[in-house]
This record gives sequence, C-alpha cells and structure tokens, in this order.
Amino acid sequence: MVGFVVSFGCSPARRMESNVQSRSGFRSRNPVNMVAAGQAKSDADSKRGSLWDHQYVTELPESLVTGSGDKDPSSMRARFERMIRKAQDDLCKAIEEVDGEGTFIEDAWVRENGGGGISRVLQKGKVFEKAGINISVVYGEMPPEAVKAASDRGVTRDAGYKEGEVVPFFACGISSVMHPRNPMAPTVHFNYRYFETDSGLYWFGGGTDLTPSYLYEEDAKYFHQTLKDVCDRHDESYYPKFKKWCDEYFYIKHRGERRGLGGIFFDDLNEGDQDAIFAFSSDLANNVANAYVPIVNKRKDEPFTEEQKQWQQMRRGRYVEFNLVYDRGTIFGLKTGGRIESILMSLPETATWLYNFHPEEGTWEAKTLEAMKNPVDWV
Amino acid sequence: MVGFVVSFGCSPARRMESNVQSRSGFRSRNPVNMVAAGQAKSDADSKRGSLWDHQYVTELPESLVTGSGDKDPSSMRARFERMIRKAQDDLCKAIEEVDGEGTFIEDAWVRENGGGGISRVLQKGKVFEKAGINISVVYGEMPPEAVKAASDRGVTRDAGYKEGEVVPFFACGISSVMHPRNPMAPTVHFNYRYFETDSGLYWFGGGTDLTPSYLYEEDAKYFHQTLKDVCDRHDESYYPKFKKWCDEYFYIKHRGERRGLGGIFFDDLNEGDQDAIFAFSSDLANNVANAYVPIVNKRKDEPFTEEQKQWQQMRRGRYVEFNLVYDRGTIFGLKTGGRIESILMSLPETATWLYNFHPEEGTWEAKTLEAMKNPVDWV
Repeated sequence: MVGFVVSFGCSPARRMESNVQSRSGFRSRNPVNMVAAGQAKSDADSKRGSLWDHQYVTELPESLVTGSGDKDPSSMRARFERMIRKAQDDLCKAIEEVDGEGTFIEDAWVRENGGGGISRVLQKGKVFEKAGINISVVYGEMPPEAVKAASDRGVTRDAGYKEGEVVPFFACGISSVMHPRNPMAPTVHFNYRYFETDSGLYWFGGGTDLTPSYLYEEDAKYFHQTLKDVCDRHDESYYPKFKKWCDEYFYIKHRGERRGLGGIFFDDLNEGDQDAIFAFSSDLANNVANAYVPIVNKRKDEPFTEEQKQWQQMRRGRYVEFNLVYDRGTIFGLKTGGRIESILMSLPETATWLYNFHPEEGTWEAKTLEAMKNPVDWV
Repeated sequence: MVGFVVSFGCSPARRMESNVQSRSGFRSRNPVNMVAAGQAKSDADSKRGSLWDHQYVTELPESLVTGSGDKDPSSMRARFERMIRKAQDDLCKAIEEVDGEGTFIEDAWVRENGGGGISRVLQKGKVFEKAGINISVVYGEMPPEAVKAASDRGVTRDAGYKEGEVVPFFACGISSVMHPRNPMAPTVHFNYRYFETDSGLYWFGGGTDLTPSYLYEEDAKYFHQTLKDVCDRHDESYYPKFKKWCDEYFYIKHRGERRGLGGIFFDDLNEGDQDAIFAFSSDLANNVANAYVPIVNKRKDEPFTEEQKQWQQMRRGRYVEFNLVYDRGTIFGLKTGGRIESILMSLPETATWLYNFHPEEGTWEAKTLEAMKNPVDWV
C-alpha cells in the first residue's frame, strides 16, 4: 500500500544523503518535502501531460496493478507483476553480491490512472559502473504512433479499434541493462513484458542479449546455451527463431553491425496457451542471473590496457547509437513521455566517439566486430 | 583535379602514420593501396547502394561541383562551393592556431555521380578534444522521406514532382562542431548549405549556435551580438526571426531543455534576390571565427574542478541525445546512407550519463540549465 505520496523537487545530491531502508530492503529516496496523498505535487515529467505521471512514494505498494476491476490476484496482470517484482528483487541481490560494494538505490512511484514503477540503479560500483533494473506498470491510451512503436511488427495491436483511434492498454514489464567497468566483462540487457488492450488482446515480448567489447567464444557459447536450454524446455522451435530475431533487432543499420552478440528476442507472442507463454517468460526472466553472472564473475578482474578500455568506450558509443536511434522501447518511451531517467538508464556511464577508427585486421577488436557484423551460431 | 582514386581498406592507425601534406596544407591520408581511377574499389559505405558512394582521393579536385552542365564557374553551385571551401580553410587555420598543438587530418573523396567531400578533423588536441569541419557536395535523388527530413518545414521541396516521386537534387554545404576540453569553454556548431532541385527550386539554410556547459553571460551576449551584427547588415528582420528559430530547433523535447544557448538558425531561405542570400550566408560563414574564437581563447585555460568536468560530460551526453534523436541533418545523413564518420563527427569525444542527476538550485549548473530551458534575449 502507498504510505504517502511525495513531491520530488529536491536534487538527488541532497536526497542521496537521506536514503532510507525501504521495506524491499533496497535503499529508497527519502524526499525532503512530504505532502499528504491527494495533495501531491507531481514532478516535471507529469506536467507535460504525459501518459506516465509520476508521484514518488517511499513505501512500495503491494501491487502496482491497480486499475478498476484488477483486484483479482490470479489475473495475468497480477501474476506477471508478481513475477517481475520477484525477478527484480532476486537479480538486484545477485548483482550486489557480484559487485561487493555498490548498492541499488530505488525510486518508486505510482500513477494517477493506476500503475507505477520501481527503478533501481547501482551506480559507480566496484564491478559495475552502472546497473539498472526497472519495473513498470502502465495503464494508458496509446496514440497510433506509439501502438506502432510498441510492436515489432506493428500489426494487429489495434484490432477492434478504428485506424488512428487511441487504444486503451495495460503494459507491465521489467527491463535492465548492466554495464561493468572491466572491458573484458560484457554488458547484458534483458526485458520481459506483457501487454493487454482493453479489447482483450494480449501479447508477451522480451529478450536477453549480451554485448561484450571483447569476444570470448566460451562466454558467448555459455550465454547462448543457457538461453537455448531455457527455450528448449518450452518449445524447441523458440531458440533458433528468437536468436535470429535478436540478431535482426539489434542491428545498427548505419554501421552495418549489431550492438553485440545477441541472445534471444521475441515479440507479439500470443499463440497457444497463455499460461505456457507466461511460464516461458518467467523461466527466461529467472535465468538472467544464471546466463550472465558466471561470465561477469569470470571477467570482472581480467587485466586490460588503456587501449582496451578505449575500445570498450567506443563500443559503449555504439550502444548509445543503437538505443537512441533504433531501440523501439526507448522510442516508445520518449514518444509517450515516459519517465526519462528510467528510459535512459540504459545508457552507459561513459562513452567515446573517435573519428573514423577501425580496428586493425586480425586483432581481437576486429574479430569481435566481425561477430557483430556476421552473427555466429554459438550453439 | 583528381590525381588518382584509391581504395580505403586499411585501418586509420596505419594510415595515420603515412599522412602526407596535401596541396591544401592540411595533412591528408596517404592510403596504402592505390589503384588507377576507374578501377577504384569503393569502401564499405559505397557498397550499401548509398546515394553517397565514396572514392578517396589524396589530392583535392579544384571543384567538387562536377555534374553535367556544371562547368560554369559563375553558377551559384560553383560560387557556394568556393565560399565554403575557403571558409573551411580559414577556419581550420584559426582553430589550429587556438589549439597550438593539434592539427587537422583530412579525408577527401569524390563520388561516382559527381560531387564529393572533404572532412577535416582535429582530435585529441591541447584545447580541442575534437573539432571537425566538413564540406560536402552531393548530387542525388532524394527519397520522399529524405526530402521531408531535408527541410525544416517539410514543404514545397518537391514542387514539380508527384507525391512520393524521387526528387533529383544538388546539395552543397559546410558543417562543423568543435568541442573544447575545458568545461568553461563552449562547444560551437555551424552549418551553411545550399540546395537545388532539378526543377530549378533552390534554397539556403544554416546557422551558428553555442553550447556552453557553464554560462558566462558576457560570452553569450558577445556571441549573439556578433551574429546579430552580421544579420543586421543584410536584413534587420533576420536576427530576431532566426534567433527564435534556433531556440525552437535545438530543443531536446524529452528533456524539456535546449541543447545550448542558441544563436541563429534558418532554412528554406529563397525569398528575394539569390545573390543577396548568398552574400548573407557567406557573411555568416566568414564570421564564425569572429563569434567563437575570442570566447574559446578567453575560457580555454580557466581553472575547473572534477565536478565541473563531470557536468560538462553530462552536457555532452545531452549533445549526443539531441544529435541522434532530433537533429535533421544527422537523420537525413543516416537515412540517405551518408558517410557515417563525417555525420557522426559531431559527437563529442566523451560523454557521460548519470542516473537522475539534477543540479542543486541556485548553483551555476542550475543557472546555466535554466537558460537552456527558458531562452534568454541576449542582445
């Protein structure tokens, strides 16, 4: 339940000093100016007439699924939220354990029309320069351009609605990017989401993918094998299909290369049994740590040179290029006036652009890049 | 004249070692593998079926305006090219003088269908971490989406053509971004361009704008006054109109703030006498150094703290956000398959994203940001 609703006008610098332990165990902001619920002043984002107004809370509500008629704890909305909230908790703990020093700071908010979000960010840690794990529950009306951006194939999402008509929807998802410091330790990204329109259509989407600066074939194989094992438990056709989809999705067209070494990616999944797709999504979300943590543990203390650090920084630049120019989730968020800090949390702490740099043929950098230009079948 | 045309398969690292002095006085790349003109293998960019194929040259042709029927040196195409090539030469010299250590490296290319480009980049200098000045001449056919992106107002550019029909065009322009190291020294951007479609329509566009990390009011006033003086020499209605246009153009919508402190920006300028608009564009291009160099000279050695450096890096992040998400020139370039390295040369050497950082009220950072949220009339 929401204890109280607060305004958010103070600077993080001040707020950081007054962090308190929240019920979830992660430090949450303890804003300076508290006002009673209902009198809450919303922050700048909410003044823009956004779908996604934010009223910050210091105590997490038990459920963010709060729309009318949404009290049924056995609904898919409620089950999906419980699943991703547990995944967020578990993964934050796993990542803090890897880091050894950094801790996640939490921002949580609820929305006037129902829903809310929990952003957790670990910044300037020992192992991770930036790791963020967000969950978000949104009730809203999608303008047609957002409907299009919300679906990879841009089709059938507005079934039951006239062309150009806004589509009332429910969306719930977890998304995360973790950028380690060491250039030998890869970045991981995942997100799992569930959508419903008010006409009763639903679909699941998501994926997990790896972006190293330096290719270790054994890591790439381990990562893909772990994802394949999860997929195969549910449907043997999934891995090959979703691996290919991932390679297609994370394509930086103007560079002719992919953001990383891929993984799996799927969208619009609604064929067959809803419970089965939910089980599949849950299994994937619950195996991110299994796919990623052993790799980061193995690589976090590798020695590296300044040149290698610089190459990592240039790859970070490519990460920024993909996310700002092509990533549908980012564009959806920017277009619908989402909470900018949560959306752009995926950007690395630092990035570099050097003019016309191309790695020498035969180098480790060139070999890594080659695997991003021409995707490899790792398993 | 083109001495010879070369392939470009070697890495910059190797090419940098073999730089030679070109006729222009700026070091040009001396590629390793030379082939006779006509047998030239083009580089990766040109294999993508781009409008903008590139065949690198070590000696600059006297003119890049080489389309059929374009031999008349008194044509606007030829005059505009001469103007921007001289502006490029002059400004490179002025910036090298400010830097004291760094020198511009040149990449020059010609295109099969006519036209070409000259990119000059000074990287890792003493004063400038990255400064690039490009000129480009393009003959091509704009797909409808590019026609739209090429014009701020997206209108009338396809007069004489059916909707959806490709529009043959000529474009010629200079564009530049210079990022100094010192957080007290502002970044400057300018570009001046001339377009013609084959149906005889023409228009001029351009602008010069300043992006400091720290506001010095006297610098903002000097910069805007210099631009206003140039404008007023041509038309007293220009400065107020184009200052406002600039504030509107460089708006980072998802942040609710502008990229910097503005300057002037105009597009679609074709009313009245063509010679007069050319004179106006030339006067602006020739006054970039006058508007900017005194400021950077005054600020390049200011003392600064680590926190101030970090704030600069975050503002660089905003620069990246604007350029990749909103900048029409960048999007036009990416959509038409332009030379990526020249387009993205505008990105800073380094940038930072911190989660949810907002400057404390009353600080210099907050005051600077305020001027980017609510544009000021500086003169």
